[in-house]
Amino acid sequence: MKNPRTALIIIGNEILSGRTQDLNVKSIAEKLATRGLSLSQVRIIPDVEDIIIKTVHELAADYTYVFTTGGIGATHDDITASCIAKAFNRSLILDPIADQLLSHHYKDAYNKARQRMAYVPESSELIPNPISAAPGFKINNVYCLAGIPMVMQAMFDHVLQELTPGDPILSKTVCTKIPENNIADELGDIQKEHPDVEIGSYPRFSPPKSYELSLVVRGTDEGVIMVVVDKLIALIHQHGEQAQLL
Amino acid sequence: MKNPRTALIIIGNEILSGRTQDLNVKSIAEKLATRGLSLSQVRIIPDVEDIIIKTVHELAADYTYVFTTGGIGATHDDITASCIAKAFNRSLILDPIADQLLSHHYKDAYNKARQRMAYVPESSELIPNPISAAPGFKINNVYCLAGIPMVMQAMFDHVLQELTPGDPILSKTVCTKIPENNIADELGDIQKEHPDVEIGSYPRFSPPKSYELSLVVRGTDEGVIMVVVDKLIALIHQHGEQAQLL
Repeated sequence: MKNPRTALIIIGNEILSGRTQDLNVKSIAEKLATRGLSLSQVRIIPDVEDIIIKTVHELAADYTYVFTTGGIGATHDDITASCIAKAFNRSLILDPIADQLLSHHYKDAYNKARQRMAYVPESSELIPNPISAAPGFKINNVYCLAGIPMVMQAMFDHVLQELTPGDPILSKTVCTKIPENNIADELGDIQKEHPDVEIGSYPRFSPPKSYELSLVVRGTDEGVIMVVVDKLIALIHQHGEQAQLL
Repeated sequence: MKNPRTALIIIGNEILSGRTQDLNVKSIAEKLATRGLSLSQVRIIPDVEDIIIKTVHELAADYTYVFTTGGIGATHDDITASCIAKAFNRSLILDPIADQLLSHHYKDAYNKARQRMAYVPESSELIPNPISAAPGFKINNVYCLAGIPMVMQAMFDHVLQELTPGDPILSKTVCTKIPENNIADELGDIQKEHPDVEIGSYPRFSPPKSYELSLVVRGTDEGVIMVVVDKLIALIHQHGEQAQLL
């Protein structure tokens, strides 16, 4: 698949400590797929300045789009904006529009701590936050979003519209009860014959005895996908098992 | 915190595509915490040889312990063992003990594809798999585990016993309904006064109007943690709100 490549940086000690179950990888991946895009890599890193800067440098150079989540609130552990400013050698400036939005949102409760959320790297573009006002921001190919899933998703829906779409990624799943290792060699042969699709083999066990295998064929050419699907179904039938196309 | 540093590499297109919700980060983090260890970084990468090798090189050099999950089954997309062998310039060899274990487990159904799971990098140590026989393996400071959560967890329980423990990581949580931005500046001051603990501020919104703030204090010295907890509770009371210690 030759679509634009994207990477995600999750900034947050609470994910690394196991306190919080990450939900953002899956929802970003699903939203990207609707635009023919997919995640090529994810990094989960702590709220530590030098690690954030190093990770942004590496990924911004290697990927078409980079997304970050987390660390854009108003407390001492929210350091994403200042780290991104340093990563791109920009000043951190009070954005007048963000300042106005937050002032309007918080009214009399708008204080110095809340105003920290109106500071963004110079020359970045704001990303609207329809849930809690504090905006995200974009600088070059890096989009910085909130970490709270509900807020992140609302911001990401906006970002999604301005990404250059890839060829739609199509996916078909063949379900069967055949043990994957009974067909592993033939699966490998079919993958080699069709390098433009990606064949994933995902067994699922529910103890004590329930078992199901999902063979997922992903690619951008529906014709090729269906040729592969037909080969998979024929292979399963040869082994005397049933197959169901989802 | 000066404990040994660990990193996790999740190898799997199914996580990056959004097909599968990752559960391994949280369970590994929780298990590590029982030994005074914590995750310093996680990378989620695709089933692609050069990316796997590059990532293993980078992290094995930087961290005390590196764990990988995924890619040790018998199908064409299971390439972890061959990649790790290449990363450490070792041959991939048929391990006689793994071969025997698998042969015993599968009996008449033990075929060439299944035997692929008995190949490990030369001079690696096997990691027992009490669920489905196919072992993980350890080479230098890199532990390679299954991706299926139930199997990964059983393997990890074994690995955990041989890691050098860190000072136990203690954690106390203060719950309150105060908006975090009302105390953000003072929180930052308390964090600066106590650099040896990590104060996390995690607001949680349940629409339309429910709100709760968790202030999590983590560290290895219970005395210092309790001093910080007392300061947090006093701060919340100063603002006329209630605080609950969990």
